Amino acid sequence: MSRLSPARSVALPSALRAGIESAVGPKGWTDAPDEMAPHLVDLRGLYRGRAALLVRPGSAAEVAEVVRLCAAARVPIVPQGGNTGLVGGATPHEHGGEILLSLARLDRIRSIDALDYTMTVEAGCILRRVQEAAAAADRLFPLSLGAEGSCQIGGNLSTNAGGIAVLRYGNARELVLGLEVVLPDGRIWDGLRSLRKDNTGYDLKQLFIGAEGTLGIITAAVLKLFPRPHERITAFAAIDALPAALELLSRCRTASGDAVTSFELIPRLGLDLALRHVAGTTDPLAGRHAHYLLIELSASAPGSGLRERLEGLLAQAMADGLVRDATLADSEAASRRLWRVREAIVEGERAEGASVKHDVSVPVSRVPRFIELASRRVEDALPGVRPMAFGHLGDGNVHFNLIQPAGADPRAFLDRREALSRIVHDTAVELGGSISAEHGLGRLKRDEIRRYKPAVELDMMRRIKAALDPDDIMNPGKVV
Amino acid sequence: MSRLSPARSVALPSALRAGIESAVGPKGWTDAPDEMAPHLVDLRGLYRGRAALLVRPGSAAEVAEVVRLCAAARVPIVPQGGNTGLVGGATPHEHGGEILLSLARLDRIRSIDALDYTMTVEAGCILRRVQEAAAAADRLFPLSLGAEGSCQIGGNLSTNAGGIAVLRYGNARELVLGLEVVLPDGRIWDGLRSLRKDNTGYDLKQLFIGAEGTLGIITAAVLKLFPRPHERITAFAAIDALPAALELLSRCRTASGDAVTSFELIPRLGLDLALRHVAGTTDPLAGRHAHYLLIELSASAPGSGLRERLEGLLAQAMADGLVRDATLADSEAASRRLWRVREAIVEGERAEGASVKHDVSVPVSRVPRFIELASRRVEDALPGVRPMAFGHLGDGNVHFNLIQPAGADPRAFLDRREALSRIVHDTAVELGGSISAEHGLGRLKRDEIRRYKPAVELDMMRRIKAALDPDDIMNPGKVV
Repeated sequence: MSRLSPARSVALPSALRAGIESAVGPKGWTDAPDEMAPHLVDLRGLYRGRAALLVRPGSAAEVAEVVRLCAAARVPIVPQGGNTGLVGGATPHEHGGEILLSLARLDRIRSIDALDYTMTVEAGCILRRVQEAAAAADRLFPLSLGAEGSCQIGGNLSTNAGGIAVLRYGNARELVLGLEVVLPDGRIWDGLRSLRKDNTGYDLKQLFIGAEGTLGIITAAVLKLFPRPHERITAFAAIDALPAALELLSRCRTASGDAVTSFELIPRLGLDLALRHVAGTTDPLAGRHAHYLLIELSASAPGSGLRERLEGLLAQAMADGLVRDATLADSEAASRRLWRVREAIVEGERAEGASVKHDVSVPVSRVPRFIELASRRVEDALPGVRPMAFGHLGDGNVHFNLIQPAGADPRAFLDRREALSRIVHDTAVELGGSISAEHGLGRLKRDEIRRYKPAVELDMMRRIKAALDPDDIMNPGKVV
Repeated sequence: MSRLSPARSVALPSALRAGIESAVGPKGWTDAPDEMAPHLVDLRGLYRGRAALLVRPGSAAEVAEVVRLCAAARVPIVPQGGNTGLVGGATPHEHGGEILLSLARLDRIRSIDALDYTMTVEAGCILRRVQEAAAAADRLFPLSLGAEGSCQIGGNLSTNAGGIAVLRYGNARELVLGLEVVLPDGRIWDGLRSLRKDNTGYDLKQLFIGAEGTLGIITAAVLKLFPRPHERITAFAAIDALPAALELLSRCRTASGDAVTSFELIPRLGLDLALRHVAGTTDPLAGRHAHYLLIELSASAPGSGLRERLEGLLAQAMADGLVRDATLADSEAASRRLWRVREAIVEGERAEGASVKHDVSVPVSRVPRFIELASRRVEDALPGVRPMAFGHLGDGNVHFNLIQPAGADPRAFLDRREALSRIVHDTAVELGGSISAEHGLGRLKRDEIRRYKPAVELDMMRRIKAALDPDDIMNPGKVV
């Protein structure tokens, strides 16, 4: 973390600066401190950097020309999308010698082909605009996450975003058919193919997806579309013990023809905090239960019978003692109320005091064991700490957050964060898990990952970085 | 193509040979010509190679030790699975200086976790065994293709196999959560994670999938499983013109909740050849039509209502003039009869004379244009030639085969194959397509691809190859 005072931009070689200004035109750059300021700090305020210049190219060709000039001058580049990342991957370093390159002006939806179930978009398109354009063509682009009103699709792909529909549609990586990328030497790779099958060599697009801008700059993508859901069925179910959740998930997948789009875990503590701190939330069920599940199925056509099937399944699960109580939303408003409970957890948690957050994943079948083991270990290390495991159970991706002991000093609690996170990460990896399920490595976990990844894997990553970006021009100091 | 006579194996440095023999034990190697012979020629007989030794390690550790020894001695290795490839990727070169490494003895299914919807298998497992093991756990491993009785999962992953369920489940690449790989220097990468979400750096597994053994040897994999279909609904529909197929596909995807597993094109010529040459085939519909579609939906639970929905959809499509006639299979036997027609095309084609085959793909929405344009061009180049476009229309992957003019000399026709293939490949690429949708590059298309792939993409592939296999030990002369 850096606490540098705001500072003027560092001077670039004048020929480079002139070259960039000429390449992008007057609308394409700024060094005005007030315009640059929001781009120099990450969303959570963990990192505050400086940059020599904020460049906003208007086309892939302009991006390429800027990169070519910077590569020749050995000046590194930090690409930035909507700046909603959580690991500092898009924030420049404190030394101020980097160019910050915003993709915001590359915001055209180049084409939509409904029969082909594909669309081609530029990196700077806001995710919600992409979703809306797909919906206007009666199609679904399924990527959906909290920041969708401001994050950009280029950033979503560069970080392989997850979100709330991974169970059914996969991560961002699985939603891409082709990419256009500006390479670290300024060449443009036109890989904008919209093919469902293409076995002609290494699948290079997969390297750039999730590379957090360290191998090149994604400037456009061909995205996969799906039939648009015309009905969603939302249920809220109470269970006594976590293993029941796995059995229920499996039954839901089978009974619905794999139409489960979300399967979210809510612990009683999460519900309590939501009810306590967030206006307008209500307990969907009578009585107190240990855990709850928010289940959503999607049908792409009316008359799917999915609602009746889920109803029958939940009745059977109650008869089997798997589920204690359950309710099905009977309207769109009722569905929104159930989702509101899920979303209010974060707000309730914040109001309750300091917390230490983790974005871990384990194999789906090991989620119960992980929660049990990690909870016990952090409680041993800090009596009174309140573990709260909630979120994407269907993906093995529970947000395992630690809330401060009631009434304790928040600062003293946060001073323990490193030791507590170490316990959580060690436990996830011990169970075959990951210390970053959705958010990436960026700068925050770049050193941490060395503790967990096999040396041979780190070595391969470094070799690939050196092969594609030998001068370390692209987003240096992040990921590898 | 090579027509070398069978030859003795080339002598290895004696220390290397002794090292390998000791590493794998007496069951782990052979140089007996009769045992080696079937491994030295590819399925179609395009390539006949020689090898210094056939090594059959019994574990990943033994594979690693063999690779380490070969790397130290700079002796290259050709990995081989079920030897069912169609582009010579697993056949050693004629010079005989390579080690042929068979994965056949790595044939354990290490584990199945039904609740996790995953299984971990070794590379040498026959695909059908993998399918059966999944089914025994009431799960589906959806990869399915003609060679499934003899191909091995390691080869399927190394070639990113496609097959008949790509529309619903994706290519092999999308069915993998983790890999174990022996690298070109003999280190083992244990990437056997079974995580649905893991954003901790470059997705290295995607590099090895589809690399045809040129970057390392896949020794085991964690595979994704799905709910097992309990009902399949098969229909056969006649259309006048190809654009109707696209509209029908789109309606089927929407109405079924994306439960379309196959959408196969059969031209009238294909049906005619099947009826003429293959005993037991019958025309499913009365009257003659230009094209037919074999449509299959899968439901993972009984009572899905999918059959009724497909019935209604086809009736509406007939009312709209989109479909001319259609039939739904009313039993498993009837479904098999419809599939028999599809499968008999290849047999009928063979009986009709010489043919030149292509494994091209284009964007789904451009399939009609591709078939029209490529047909016209080959007919202009060789009057009387009979283009037959059939297969995976739903993936944009039609097998565009050219059957010799009726009564013409097969040899004279085959002499024209290069010029004809050039027309077909040029047309596919002109429409944004690929010259190898499913089969890979291997040796057959390694030079051909240079004509079509952007130079910048070939350059990246070469850099990655050099970064991971600097001494060109792994399957040299293939892909790149």
